[in-house]
Amino acid sequence: MSLKSILKISQADNVAIAVNLEGIPEGMWIIDGLISLEQVPMGHKITLEDIPQGGPVIRYGYTIGIARTPISAGSWVQEHLLEIPEAPALDEIPYHPVNWQVPEKLEGYTFEGYRNPDGTVGTKNILGISMSVQCVAGMANYVIDKIKKELLPLYPNVDDVIALSHHYGCGVAINAPAAAIPIRTIHNLARNPNLGGEIMVLGLGCEKLRPETITGQDAGNILYMQDESFTGFHEMVDAVLETAKIHLSKLNARRRETCPVADLVVGMQCGGSDAFSGLTGNPVAGYAADLIVRAGGTVFFSEVTEVRDAIGQLVARAADAEVAQKLVTAMKWYDDYLQNGLADRTANTTPGNKIGGLSNIVEKALGSVVKSGTMPIVDVVAPGERVKKKGLQFVSTPASDFVCGTLQLAAGMNLHVFITGRGTPYGLTMVPVIKISSNSKLANRWHDLIDFDAGLVATGEKTIEELGWSLFHDMLEVASGRRKVATDILGIYNDLVLFNPGPLT
Amino acid sequence: MSLKSILKISQADNVAIAVNLEGIPEGMWIIDGLISLEQVPMGHKITLEDIPQGGPVIRYGYTIGIARTPISAGSWVQEHLLEIPEAPALDEIPYHPVNWQVPEKLEGYTFEGYRNPDGTVGTKNILGISMSVQCVAGMANYVIDKIKKELLPLYPNVDDVIALSHHYGCGVAINAPAAAIPIRTIHNLARNPNLGGEIMVLGLGCEKLRPETITGQDAGNILYMQDESFTGFHEMVDAVLETAKIHLSKLNARRRETCPVADLVVGMQCGGSDAFSGLTGNPVAGYAADLIVRAGGTVFFSEVTEVRDAIGQLVARAADAEVAQKLVTAMKWYDDYLQNGLADRTANTTPGNKIGGLSNIVEKALGSVVKSGTMPIVDVVAPGERVKKKGLQFVSTPASDFVCGTLQLAAGMNLHVFITGRGTPYGLTMVPVIKISSNSKLANRWHDLIDFDAGLVATGEKTIEELGWSLFHDMLEVASGRRKVATDILGIYNDLVLFNPGPLT
Repeated sequence: MSLKSILKISQADNVAIAVNLEGIPEGMWIIDGLISLEQVPMGHKITLEDIPQGGPVIRYGYTIGIARTPISAGSWVQEHLLEIPEAPALDEIPYHPVNWQVPEKLEGYTFEGYRNPDGTVGTKNILGISMSVQCVAGMANYVIDKIKKELLPLYPNVDDVIALSHHYGCGVAINAPAAAIPIRTIHNLARNPNLGGEIMVLGLGCEKLRPETITGQDAGNILYMQDESFTGFHEMVDAVLETAKIHLSKLNARRRETCPVADLVVGMQCGGSDAFSGLTGNPVAGYAADLIVRAGGTVFFSEVTEVRDAIGQLVARAADAEVAQKLVTAMKWYDDYLQNGLADRTANTTPGNKIGGLSNIVEKALGSVVKSGTMPIVDVVAPGERVKKKGLQFVSTPASDFVCGTLQLAAGMNLHVFITGRGTPYGLTMVPVIKISSNSKLANRWHDLIDFDAGLVATGEKTIEELGWSLFHDMLEVASGRRKVATDILGIYNDLVLFNPGPLT
Repeated sequence: MSLKSILKISQADNVAIAVNLEGIPEGMWIIDGLISLEQVPMGHKITLEDIPQGGPVIRYGYTIGIARTPISAGSWVQEHLLEIPEAPALDEIPYHPVNWQVPEKLEGYTFEGYRNPDGTVGTKNILGISMSVQCVAGMANYVIDKIKKELLPLYPNVDDVIALSHHYGCGVAINAPAAAIPIRTIHNLARNPNLGGEIMVLGLGCEKLRPETITGQDAGNILYMQDESFTGFHEMVDAVLETAKIHLSKLNARRRETCPVADLVVGMQCGGSDAFSGLTGNPVAGYAADLIVRAGGTVFFSEVTEVRDAIGQLVARAADAEVAQKLVTAMKWYDDYLQNGLADRTANTTPGNKIGGLSNIVEKALGSVVKSGTMPIVDVVAPGERVKKKGLQFVSTPASDFVCGTLQLAAGMNLHVFITGRGTPYGLTMVPVIKISSNSKLANRWHDLIDFDAGLVATGEKTIEELGWSLFHDMLEVASGRRKVATDILGIYNDLVLFNPGPLT
């Protein structure tokens, strides 16, 4: 039996992960002096030494749980054997400014993108039709069908036309403090680099969210259904089509040009995670994230509840004291938000996470942050805001896949990397989503839904470094439009989903 | 000048509404001893007598505002002249059991509907594909396109196939107290009478909301994308199509049969209201609501913030003390919910409401409750729950159009009446929505989006009674499938939008 039946991350760990497809059977010799006492499913943890009652269970070098009973070496560490540790107190996290060793700059890597007037670069060329309120969504869908059939064939350089549909805009407490989040998200979604700065808004007329909030200081066209000059629905539709033509013409004139990696804005996210995510997919994504940052690009990671327990690590990586403070503030806000709803961080971890071997949110978070790589964190971006810097950043969002993705789009993402262990068909219309499987079993079964198999790390066939470089190259291919991701081939996409912590009226 | 330049509702009112299209010009003789001092736009209020500073401004017989300055007779009552009164205190509302004079029963009215095994009756015949989580929405849309193209033509008695799409299911605090609302809503949406009891659920596998929650005690088919027997996306799609065929066959065998009005479940809602809504559209809808109830049917109204200020009237109409208490409890819950989000009832009223002449939420609420008619309120239904009784009921929902509509669908609505003054293209796939305009100006302009013009009441061309009966007859035609509503002709629909007061994770 090769050593590869288990994977141990940190020297201090007293548990390791069963990495073979069939798991570990009872009575197997694991390493010198360790025989499995029971069957351990793939992705689950086996104890490497006896752990006394009350003793720490250590993975990633951190305590992920306290043993409720003594656990003998060679046992399956089932969820019910662990007490979850307290969340790290946010007021006591020390920040020591670090002299970051500047890693070797990566030069010479480029991709083919659409350069925008505001300096951002698109990886697709899409007409996005914004809306101020859900009331007009039916009309938007009607119009988009018509544009796809009648207009899009006349503008062959335009990839798609999409509705920036949402459930906000009226029937909400628009002046509640929390309303700022959905409002700025809608505003910034219209500015995603892949929409080329062509802002077009459908409004109703009587809604609380004023369409001018979406156009803001920028040029754009607003059409109101309640405009008294329209007699009937079809006149409105015709007016929308005429306006769409103006924007389609401009988008159609765009051409890809060679851009440095510094123009990439990569959003990292994981969903449907398993215990492999932290061993394979996330480290590979983290390695590629470092490469992007070294090449001058932007990477962000998100999902507050999935980094909350690793806040100590994040603060230690903050580029300066202000960023350290912003990280803590973001965690505090979310702690309060959850408490306000009579929940806490343990509401994260799904049934699938647990079946996949993740015992609790601590273990999940420690594996989750790995996808951020190792670079300094240069900024923290509030939900719905747009990034202002280059380099690695934390974009503060819920962990909900579609909400996180939507907020990352608003932050200016032009390429998405999504790591999954259990498997999700997650896709976004606005940017390509590279889907990475943490294990080869899923990659094989979901051959047409997964873009990249990181499971080869677990079996030892590939190293993290090899796959990290491979992912980096894939990212440039996808960003250049030379390679299509699975969801773009199939045309399956999730909704945009806003984060609205404020009340409905 | 005819008396019809203004409309006054209650004898006690010291303001009236300008009902002519062009409003009231300055210097017009209104009634004996009253000349307009300034221009008053259509739908806005004119003072009928001098109101001192601190004096009440009275409409519908209730104080809708306190004068901030003296307002002379003949003035335009602009919003800024009014102080909003305190909301009625909920602990001090007396309940006096009333001996309701049982109104004459209406006999002999029927419609043609699809009778379901559970006793409910459908007004459409639709295959609804439920889902446990947004993750599978892309797949659901893909599959529905395929069913529409390849299967639906083979089942000509089936009207449509729709996704019961939502943004819930994972990334949420599924055990938070408030999670009960979205969960039971998803459960009950699948039971809407128009879906014929054919429950079919797409699940992922790892999500927090278990698909079995949707099927519950009822028969149904669940398919999981993560089912390890599926190799690839197209195998999953094929499995979904095979399952859909089973349900389509059963739905295709359904036939309309003659049903009493007692089988109608009518949801009343208004949106984009103006000052006419309470004068024309809502009274007409209320008259028809009384007819439905007199014929043994079910009517409900909703929108907590739009009835909150009329709670005294509602309690007085409660069929018993328990219902009275339930009404007060529903209002209290919402007061707390808004306060928790640092908002209050004044977050309702939109810019459009105000341009339309509604000064504040008090005036809006007093006009809003009119659509409930005059019958006793026999039950209060919590958000996401299904009605259990017949007769007039209050289904507790936010006032947001799409959220209210979604919760009314979950409550078992099979016919929707929607009154608008400013105009909204609101439509639902699941049930026909009869859209009533409160003024003829809108009905004329939106000739293909409005189903019923109640504006004729304002001009005196028709009485509330005449139009109430006319609406009642239209409702039976639409419920029978003999007449199509505007949104069904155009095919424009809003999203289902859940009410989730709980936190995301």
